[in-house]
Amino acid sequence: MARMKVSNAPSIRRLPSYLHIIRQSRASGDFYISGTVIAQELNLEPIQVRKDLSITGIVGKPKKGYPVEALVAAIERYLGWDRPTNAIVVGAGNLGSALMGYPEFQQHGLKIVAAFDQNPVKVGTMIHGVQVYHTDKLEDMLPGLQAHTAILAVPSDHAQVCVERLVAAGINAVWNFTNQKLRTPDKVVVQREDLSSGFAMLSVMTQIRDGRGD
Amino acid sequence: MARMKVSNAPSIRRLPSYLHIIRQSRASGDFYISGTVIAQELNLEPIQVRKDLSITGIVGKPKKGYPVEALVAAIERYLGWDRPTNAIVVGAGNLGSALMGYPEFQQHGLKIVAAFDQNPVKVGTMIHGVQVYHTDKLEDMLPGLQAHTAILAVPSDHAQVCVERLVAAGINAVWNFTNQKLRTPDKVVVQREDLSSGFAMLSVMTQIRDGRGD
Repeated sequence: MARMKVSNAPSIRRLPSYLHIIRQSRASGDFYISGTVIAQELNLEPIQVRKDLSITGIVGKPKKGYPVEALVAAIERYLGWDRPTNAIVVGAGNLGSALMGYPEFQQHGLKIVAAFDQNPVKVGTMIHGVQVYHTDKLEDMLPGLQAHTAILAVPSDHAQVCVERLVAAGINAVWNFTNQKLRTPDKVVVQREDLSSGFAMLSVMTQIRDGRGD
Repeated sequence: MARMKVSNAPSIRRLPSYLHIIRQSRASGDFYISGTVIAQELNLEPIQVRKDLSITGIVGKPKKGYPVEALVAAIERYLGWDRPTNAIVVGAGNLGSALMGYPEFQQHGLKIVAAFDQNPVKVGTMIHGVQVYHTDKLEDMLPGLQAHTAILAVPSDHAQVCVERLVAAGINAVWNFTNQKLRTPDKVVVQREDLSSGFAMLSVMTQIRDGRGD
């Protein structure tokens, strides 16, 4: 499937920000956190926060707020982040390397177990603690890596060929950082990351501030 | 403002994908494109596509669809991408370098005119055609660069100090790739890019496929 239809997608996209704040609250020794505090911290409406958090099944108590420990556990469980996910990075260029070094992923149970690249200068090196192998080794190595998730950061014109090899070798979840729509079998989930979306938001906010009048 | 409330945010986030497809259609010589074709291409519902595109003020014609040329112009105008935006990149590490080389940005009128970094190994080099200067030069150089947008890709613990310098030097729009919430004056718009959001989506889609039953 190119893109599964997921209800609550905007809420799901906000859950990592909630998790970040609630974990901080836990680290400070709090037992409860109020929806209003979370809302202020993220500049959201309190009603939005309550609605978003309700998808995890946890409801706040009047006056006390949400039980911190249970809320962290519920968000992690909802996202499946209570279990580890092994992933490979394909394409160890600037973006792939940046993703290997992105510190938050480890907190989400995402473990990058290997990277693959065609560039002989990269092959054999370690990037942020991740070993880079030649793409030719993909099929041989993948079964031993216990990884079914691939982070695709190859040049866009290699994306489709690359994803076909990945799927044939056992990958069933692809985080696609290329600008290509990928054709994949139904069993494969694909999340495309389009950095232009964020720039669209920034551009519109700039115009609103400058008085476009939205 | 930490994050301006923007109505239609999910629609705005999808506009770049529409623009990509509609420009391809224009390049193929089409005069009209149907909402259904766009929907299929992006795996969305046609009604969603119509609703999203209606924010640009363009309405499709029955049987014919949308006039391609007018739709491209309307989306670009809505996003402010019909005018160039000069931006600087602050932090020329892996992520900053990847952003300097991201090919789509140029098509959106986003021109990265300079990069700043503290690392002496980076200073003085060109990355993807962008000159890297020492961060100490920021205040001196910014007025001449005609840039009011900064792409922030420094280590997270430098983010707040860095944004304060940027704002004092004339930056009023920040695309924040760190995981820090930034405290900025009201006149400054901030768009935070949280890569964990995409992983949250991928994780939930994987669970739905594997039968969690959402």
